[in-house]
Amino acid sequence: MSQIRQILDMNAFDASTGGEGAVKRRLDNLGAASVLFYREPIEMVAAKGAWMEARDGTRYLDFYNNVPSVGHSHPEVVAAVSAQVAKLNTNTRYLVEIVDDYLEALKTKLHGQLSNVVMTCSGSEANDLAIRVARAVSGKTGVIVTETAYHGNTALVTEVSPSALKRSPLPDHVVIVPAPGAAAYGEDIANGFRAAVVAAMETLETRGHGTAAFLADSIFSSDGIFADPAGFLLPAVQAVQEDGGLYIADEVQPGFGRTGDAFWGYERHGIAPDIVTMGKPMGNGFPMAGMAARPEHLAAFCEDVGYFNTFGGNPVAAAAGLAVLRVIAEEGLQGNALRVGAHLKAGLSEVAAGSDRVTEVRGAGLFLGVDLGAEDGSGAPDAGYTVQVIDRMRAAGVLIGAAGRFGATLKVRPPLCLNMAEADRFIEAFSGAVKG
Amino acid sequence: MSQIRQILDMNAFDASTGGEGAVKRRLDNLGAASVLFYREPIEMVAAKGAWMEARDGTRYLDFYNNVPSVGHSHPEVVAAVSAQVAKLNTNTRYLVEIVDDYLEALKTKLHGQLSNVVMTCSGSEANDLAIRVARAVSGKTGVIVTETAYHGNTALVTEVSPSALKRSPLPDHVVIVPAPGAAAYGEDIANGFRAAVVAAMETLETRGHGTAAFLADSIFSSDGIFADPAGFLLPAVQAVQEDGGLYIADEVQPGFGRTGDAFWGYERHGIAPDIVTMGKPMGNGFPMAGMAARPEHLAAFCEDVGYFNTFGGNPVAAAAGLAVLRVIAEEGLQGNALRVGAHLKAGLSEVAAGSDRVTEVRGAGLFLGVDLGAEDGSGAPDAGYTVQVIDRMRAAGVLIGAAGRFGATLKVRPPLCLNMAEADRFIEAFSGAVKG
Repeated sequence: MSQIRQILDMNAFDASTGGEGAVKRRLDNLGAASVLFYREPIEMVAAKGAWMEARDGTRYLDFYNNVPSVGHSHPEVVAAVSAQVAKLNTNTRYLVEIVDDYLEALKTKLHGQLSNVVMTCSGSEANDLAIRVARAVSGKTGVIVTETAYHGNTALVTEVSPSALKRSPLPDHVVIVPAPGAAAYGEDIANGFRAAVVAAMETLETRGHGTAAFLADSIFSSDGIFADPAGFLLPAVQAVQEDGGLYIADEVQPGFGRTGDAFWGYERHGIAPDIVTMGKPMGNGFPMAGMAARPEHLAAFCEDVGYFNTFGGNPVAAAAGLAVLRVIAEEGLQGNALRVGAHLKAGLSEVAAGSDRVTEVRGAGLFLGVDLGAEDGSGAPDAGYTVQVIDRMRAAGVLIGAAGRFGATLKVRPPLCLNMAEADRFIEAFSGAVKG
Repeated sequence: MSQIRQILDMNAFDASTGGEGAVKRRLDNLGAASVLFYREPIEMVAAKGAWMEARDGTRYLDFYNNVPSVGHSHPEVVAAVSAQVAKLNTNTRYLVEIVDDYLEALKTKLHGQLSNVVMTCSGSEANDLAIRVARAVSGKTGVIVTETAYHGNTALVTEVSPSALKRSPLPDHVVIVPAPGAAAYGEDIANGFRAAVVAAMETLETRGHGTAAFLADSIFSSDGIFADPAGFLLPAVQAVQEDGGLYIADEVQPGFGRTGDAFWGYERHGIAPDIVTMGKPMGNGFPMAGMAARPEHLAAFCEDVGYFNTFGGNPVAAAAGLAVLRVIAEEGLQGNALRVGAHLKAGLSEVAAGSDRVTEVRGAGLFLGVDLGAEDGSGAPDAGYTVQVIDRMRAAGVLIGAAGRFGATLKVRPPLCLNMAEADRFIEAFSGAVKG
């Protein structure tokens, strides 16, 4: 079992105990597909802004969930969804003005070549389609991903999601590269990562697959959050593109302003992706996602297969998506992510300076990774300790999770509406949690 | 290109013309993935009950779309979605009461062994998961489907959707059987269909795959709607189950009361499916779907792969789903489907009796298929004439589409709230259309 699976299990409710009350109901309904946070799961009843409220009245500061990105239950999104669902909810086989209004608004955020957008229901569907488009365009079948990547839950996308696999080996056409951190590549991450990707391309060539795509989340969320130095991703991407492969930027995690310095995570690296996939924060919780591609690339795929997505691009999704874009602009949330993220990073770095168990703080905007290390001060990743810290943070009223190959990186990922006081509250809670 | 793809293209907007105005916007945004109904697409602005309203003020009776199954913009669904999206919209890693309320309500509709439900965003995701569960349980990889089946749009599900493939051959592990009509099997459809499925199992065995699943939509929607005689599906399903394969009932089309006599289409055939997948009408347009399975089957899959679906089972979907179940019960929509469906079938059969171009009327509840034949009275399927009839129906204010291997079957599939007057209006429009 991969280490990240182990840590997820360590921090999850132990279903083998059977549970009682609301937990038992959940297990009876979802069975083995039930994955509940925490050994003692939380029942949520409401949420607003950066806060969630549990059944027992406890209020939690949400540093975990990047779906309600403009804030839980944001009134503009609520109003937009409520108005549109009462008016018209149909599919893209008819023309519906708000759908094209949304797509045009979204496209102003993308570089000009990516002028076609296929709307889907989930990031999984978007990545599933993106891989097939890359295969149709390149005539190759191999895919390169990072070692602890997660790109979704369909059969095809699970193949390229090492962190989802419990015991199955990766298929022959998937080759992994270590996450782009100093641990694997030393000081020169850009060239080291490029060399790893080139080696993976050679492996795929040797195996007879060739490289259809390099698929990466540009903030490397599941791998443990790697953002610096800005630009490190470009040489690897160029190597793939020069070979006729496509770079698929999985923006499900970093997209929609989270990294603060730009709307998409890949912009940090000066890349022009061939395909961009997006999802989670796109509708602030309304199920919607999408894949942006060049018209000629999409056409190459559609020669073989007729693609239609019943719920994809419905008018209610468009209304939610438009509201999200409007709120990000009106409330200056990308700028807020930059400012509050910098404040948070500085505060956490200060905590790290005074603790031999906080070994690194990194990231961009409101997406930070905080490494936690062993008691002996060796700096070795400590998954058990990470679970302890997560539990202590929960006791202090803060929701947070872990990521990374060793499950020893806190994934700091609050809604983009986070204010300075809330950031301070997190820093204080974290400081207390790592002192224990 | 498959014949059903040809007919879909015949009845779709011809994108090569470029379009203008709203059509041009759509093509610029969706590119090759844009599939618009009608040579002259319709721009919709609102919908209520069984009616849709176009930009130019024309009101259309919707006999096409089975997603808004309890009626477009149903006030109870609208109220449920609006209230929940304002309160809490999160994922199943927390406990949320309304999610388990929904799953328990849904499970009262399923036979007792199917006590685990995985919520997904789309029927595609549900079928993608179902095939993998069947493979994990059976240890086999082959899948049997009908010749013009459509089960969704992911990579895996496209492989088992012959009607989506334009020129790619079916993969080696997929074997098709003719649709269960008299054309292929004569009078004894039950035994003929069983024999075809057994032959497909033997082919899969010979090819070294074995049979993981027989996957069928129990109303055979894309194949042209085959409902009778009730029970014909049972022997084929039993043959698969006796061999250790699973029967996956794809209820995305017939489920939620549409066939009138039962809540699920498979009940008509006295079957106990191993897995049930569902989607389209489940949330009346809110993107939601699901897969119901036995706990031990789901567990077998989850040993290998950690499955999580971010938007699947969110509280807003649960609220929409609960409202749909409540409306079906309160408004007696299953009974209405039976009554109004019978009236509609009788009326259409009367039209057929007076026309040599309407060659058969069949189906159950509010899901009927009407075959249209050649001018020479030979009864040969006539796709071109079907497009004419669809266009005439549109001119008469009725939306309808085609299905079937030859694209010559009208797919009669109005919302379940259809009343007798609306049914009569359809019969009248159809009678006029086939006289021309």
